[in-house]
Amino acid sequence: MGGGGRGLLFIVSSPSGGGKTTLIRLTMERLRARGGRCHFSVSHTTRPPRPGEVDGRDYHFVSREEFERMVHAGEFLEWAEYAGNLYGTSRREVEGRLEAGIDVFLDIEVQGAAQVKGKIPEAVKVFVYPPSYEELKRRLEQRRQDPPEAIRRRLLWAERELQVVGDFDYAIINDRLDEAVDVLFGICLAEHHRVAVITSTLDAIRETFRVSLEEDLKR
Amino acid sequence: MGGGGRGLLFIVSSPSGGGKTTLIRLTMERLRARGGRCHFSVSHTTRPPRPGEVDGRDYHFVSREEFERMVHAGEFLEWAEYAGNLYGTSRREVEGRLEAGIDVFLDIEVQGAAQVKGKIPEAVKVFVYPPSYEELKRRLEQRRQDPPEAIRRRLLWAERELQVVGDFDYAIINDRLDEAVDVLFGICLAEHHRVAVITSTLDAIRETFRVSLEEDLKR
Repeated sequence: MGGGGRGLLFIVSSPSGGGKTTLIRLTMERLRARGGRCHFSVSHTTRPPRPGEVDGRDYHFVSREEFERMVHAGEFLEWAEYAGNLYGTSRREVEGRLEAGIDVFLDIEVQGAAQVKGKIPEAVKVFVYPPSYEELKRRLEQRRQDPPEAIRRRLLWAERELQVVGDFDYAIINDRLDEAVDVLFGICLAEHHRVAVITSTLDAIRETFRVSLEEDLKR
Repeated sequence: MGGGGRGLLFIVSSPSGGGKTTLIRLTMERLRARGGRCHFSVSHTTRPPRPGEVDGRDYHFVSREEFERMVHAGEFLEWAEYAGNLYGTSRREVEGRLEAGIDVFLDIEVQGAAQVKGKIPEAVKVFVYPPSYEELKRRLEQRRQDPPEAIRRRLLWAERELQVVGDFDYAIINDRLDEAVDVLFGICLAEHHRVAVITSTLDAIRETFRVSLEEDLKR
């Protein structure tokens, strides 16, 4: 937060219905209120827009041909096929902002997270864990997006996805949303205060400290 | 924060006058308000009590003979001589609480921090950085504890201590106290949500998830 330098990349994953999108949006509001600069990365997808979804805000909606062209051109940090549709994160969307000192939040499926970490090893990986089977099922049903058979499949996938949490740095159990936001916000603050991250700010303070001390001793 | 298991050890160091004690106390209040269990570790010292200081609250005041007996008996996690007095952290004071699931905050001099990390490698080390030479000098003068010559010496030590920040995990620039408390609180929340720290909670959720899914699929 401030201090210049590169932005940080936060990869936030969860099984479908885990509530990560809301969690990220609320956390970003708190970061901005504190002067933080951050960006919610918008994925590319071949899935058709659902009612209310806006191109460029919810997703970049592209054809399968365009998506495949981008894959071959190496334009994706990660991509995956999910329920018959392709999803991907464009490298340009992320890298440019990190270089400009802006934090980037990636809201991606569990299988995509490992690919990004391979390409950007300093990425911070957060797994949003459902509090229980019943709660995840309730959320999937409440969305009214999927027929029962699709919900059943998502729950089966979820069980397998929960097993890879060991590849992540942090896990947040998304039981009470306000508490989960506190934790993700806390993780962002903490990561910005890693010594390795703010070392140039610390070096600058130390140098002026040294000069002032020297002048003071001469008096 | 809940979830059982061992408490976490937070080592908070700064040059003398850096403001770490106030920072820790305010952060602990916020952790407790959230249901966290934490303890401010009280050091042993051979320094005589200052007016207003209470034995067992500010320090355990002991004789040099008693202190040396404890050193030889291996009862200290760390100890150091500072301005002619001995300071140390008793192993029992820390270990017992960690085992009981209570977080422990150690407010120790920079030279003591490395000794503890050697003995408790999972300790989280936080360096509280003064925002500037002028500000640290102002705080030391405002305390009215030291004559000018002692303040001069503390500032010289500080300059050397700032150089070892690379041995710490996090650095907090103590400019505005409320912001510094946000950061230390955030670090505590984050550390409690490391996958390695809450792995048993995650395992338990995953197991009940699996059982519920299995039962649901049988229907």
